Amino acid sequence: MLERQLHLNAFLMGVGHHEAAWRHPRTDPGLVADVGHFQRLAAIAERGAFDSVFLADGVQLWGDVRHSVAGAFEPLTLLTALACVTDHIGLIATASTGFTEPYNLARWFSSLDHISGGRAGWNIVTTAGDRSAQNFNLDVNVEHHERYQRAAEFVDVVTALWDSWDQDALVLDAASGVFADPDKVREINHRGRFFRVRGPLNAVRSPQGRPLLVQAGSSEDGRAFAAAHAEAVFTAQQTVEEAREFYQDLKTRVAARGRAPDQVVVLPGIVPVLGSTAEEARRLAEELDDLIVPARAVGRLSELLGVDLTGHPLDEPVPPLPPVDRVNGARSRFRLIRDLAAREALTLRQLLRRLGGGRGHKVVVGTPEVVADHVETWFRGGAADGFNVMPPLLPSGLEEFVDHVVPLLRRRGLFRSGYTGRTLREHYGLTEPRNRFPLSV
Amino acid sequence: MLERQLHLNAFLMGVGHHEAAWRHPRTDPGLVADVGHFQRLAAIAERGAFDSVFLADGVQLWGDVRHSVAGAFEPLTLLTALACVTDHIGLIATASTGFTEPYNLARWFSSLDHISGGRAGWNIVTTAGDRSAQNFNLDVNVEHHERYQRAAEFVDVVTALWDSWDQDALVLDAASGVFADPDKVREINHRGRFFRVRGPLNAVRSPQGRPLLVQAGSSEDGRAFAAAHAEAVFTAQQTVEEAREFYQDLKTRVAARGRAPDQVVVLPGIVPVLGSTAEEARRLAEELDDLIVPARAVGRLSELLGVDLTGHPLDEPVPPLPPVDRVNGARSRFRLIRDLAAREALTLRQLLRRLGGGRGHKVVVGTPEVVADHVETWFRGGAADGFNVMPPLLPSGLEEFVDHVVPLLRRRGLFRSGYTGRTLREHYGLTEPRNRFPLSV
Repeated sequence: MLERQLHLNAFLMGVGHHEAAWRHPRTDPGLVADVGHFQRLAAIAERGAFDSVFLADGVQLWGDVRHSVAGAFEPLTLLTALACVTDHIGLIATASTGFTEPYNLARWFSSLDHISGGRAGWNIVTTAGDRSAQNFNLDVNVEHHERYQRAAEFVDVVTALWDSWDQDALVLDAASGVFADPDKVREINHRGRFFRVRGPLNAVRSPQGRPLLVQAGSSEDGRAFAAAHAEAVFTAQQTVEEAREFYQDLKTRVAARGRAPDQVVVLPGIVPVLGSTAEEARRLAEELDDLIVPARAVGRLSELLGVDLTGHPLDEPVPPLPPVDRVNGARSRFRLIRDLAAREALTLRQLLRRLGGGRGHKVVVGTPEVVADHVETWFRGGAADGFNVMPPLLPSGLEEFVDHVVPLLRRRGLFRSGYTGRTLREHYGLTEPRNRFPLSV
Repeated sequence: MLERQLHLNAFLMGVGHHEAAWRHPRTDPGLVADVGHFQRLAAIAERGAFDSVFLADGVQLWGDVRHSVAGAFEPLTLLTALACVTDHIGLIATASTGFTEPYNLARWFSSLDHISGGRAGWNIVTTAGDRSAQNFNLDVNVEHHERYQRAAEFVDVVTALWDSWDQDALVLDAASGVFADPDKVREINHRGRFFRVRGPLNAVRSPQGRPLLVQAGSSEDGRAFAAAHAEAVFTAQQTVEEAREFYQDLKTRVAARGRAPDQVVVLPGIVPVLGSTAEEARRLAEELDDLIVPARAVGRLSELLGVDLTGHPLDEPVPPLPPVDRVNGARSRFRLIRDLAAREALTLRQLLRRLGGGRGHKVVVGTPEVVADHVETWFRGGAADGFNVMPPLLPSGLEEFVDHVVPLLRRRGLFRSGYTGRTLREHYGLTEPRNRFPLSV
């Protein structure tokens, strides 16, 4: 029997995940607005038989534009452009439940699923931060728990809309003039606390039926939400012990919801800083960290934490941070950063360097063997079903991972040599959820 | 000096604009969910050097699914897929000001403009009908005039967001770590009756700066809106006299707003039912009209008019319709249909056949010469700057137009032999609007 196989997602981010990537001589910052750059990245990931590519998203301009990279693309349109140049790889877009309408969102993902032949996935985010809310008629954002309440109802409406058409609803009988069977297309008549949506969706059922549901929050609310809805989970974990705790907690919650634990794939982030020798890798990591603009990084960290650290001396210890339940932002990331700073007694400057590469995701600096060892240890150690790969530089870091780490993983029997399925759901080994409406007779 | 040149837009609609197109042996109804079909259509239109392709849109399922064609695609994602297989042709998507947020919409079109290298256009619709509203938390839709008030403010916010980045804001100086010039990126701080939006947009300025603004309502509110905002206008006109009245009225209103009349391109719809002989064309028109399912067509017409005509005998005259100002739907289309039925004293069945081909747009049945004559007469007669071409069958009707009508138009000196510009705005001969924010020093 084939050994359990790991899953790989390529998290595409401008010219790299390191916040100073655009300043490094191995990148060209103009590529952040070049669709061809992203198409080449998708092709590289597909060459490595990755399960999927993924695009994060926000609805505000982050940081000070003087020192911060801004993008050009909205994820669903960009993934459509990637669908056109690839045949197999899954396409996961972030979209917010906070500032969109479920009817629109259900259509976008259904449309991407049609265009890509069943490769669409939705990374569900609730969107924290007042700056985002201020682009959508609010002064302050909705409170954390309330955002998750809205998200749960939002997902409920979206999946109902996707299920409003049966797979076999189309008749296409030109002779009799019957296009579709009206018994297989239904209104959803949702009336909830946040939404009233009649339906049906104005799009025939897409190849996957339901695009994959992905989630990334690891707070208490986030875990409960993931256990109920997610089929793949991105998470930031600094140590194998913490990752294992998260993995086991999530699988337990999934089982408690009556779902099969293997139907939720857990993917911690990894930022592989690769070199052909340990020294070369270490030098690259240092080159990148040396390019961080401290003022920019402090501003960005302050935004992320919701705590103003500007003005705090760089070479003094990170000041004590408030309790997590006082935070109305990204709570799990807040906790991770607070714990990291405390555990290692970091100065602010040291913390900025630790976060520069991956914003809290695990940075692994070393040869391809070292990175493959990390992957194998976490995967075999009950801490991961696969990884969310976040190269510090793009395209070079993704090319190196595909050319040098993937072959090692294959040699160790951990990763497939090519695609065996057709849809994103098949790549991740997930079954299609049953249509929530009773089958017509 | 080159003669004034006409403009051509290809309005892509499933397997054809005739409501019974999917039943005709020359089409394959399965293509409505096939992205390759639409990519082939875009390539055909580009072969004919059309200025643009256009996708209509709604946010509800229209008509009775038993007899009505449903689609699979959302316009912005579909146009992105068309951008990937074309190099020149413009890409115009319909999106609603009624049920989206300006920040999201500004991003989508900016993203399509980036992906396509400056070929994006937005057909602004307010979205009529209670069935649409019921997919967005409402029981009844907002009143007609109020919808246009919201649309005007919506467009104001969107253009401000597009202008929130100057074209030369990017510095990309890796050495000093300066990504962008903060003086060339600004908050918009819009606070209006419908929206409060802080900005800036989280996307660098797209190639066109501002994607093209297109509009299609011809009611009093619609004309006022078009005069203020539109750069291209789609319109349904049955006679050259009516078309000339509309054309002159619109250009006068544009001038009254202080805009140059040639900076708004007027494009009446034309449904060319082509044959190599008059008889062949007439036979095709009859074949199509014979495939109309009357019950379906009455239902659809009732939805369009907001007047229940089901149960009215097919072979009796169309009953008198209420005054236009009582209508909360698509007012200009209502007036056109009411006038058509009255002018020609049509029975309900006759009206259904007259509308089956183009839902109120002008149907021209004949040889390529007859269609070219129609185009030339309206174009030279002050009734049009070009045409919105709506083939009854797709792809065949578009292929015939490109292969047989376009060469005639070229021979008559009316239409260019290839692309001379790069962006959609250049194809239509439109200058880029000035950035609404004062230039930084």
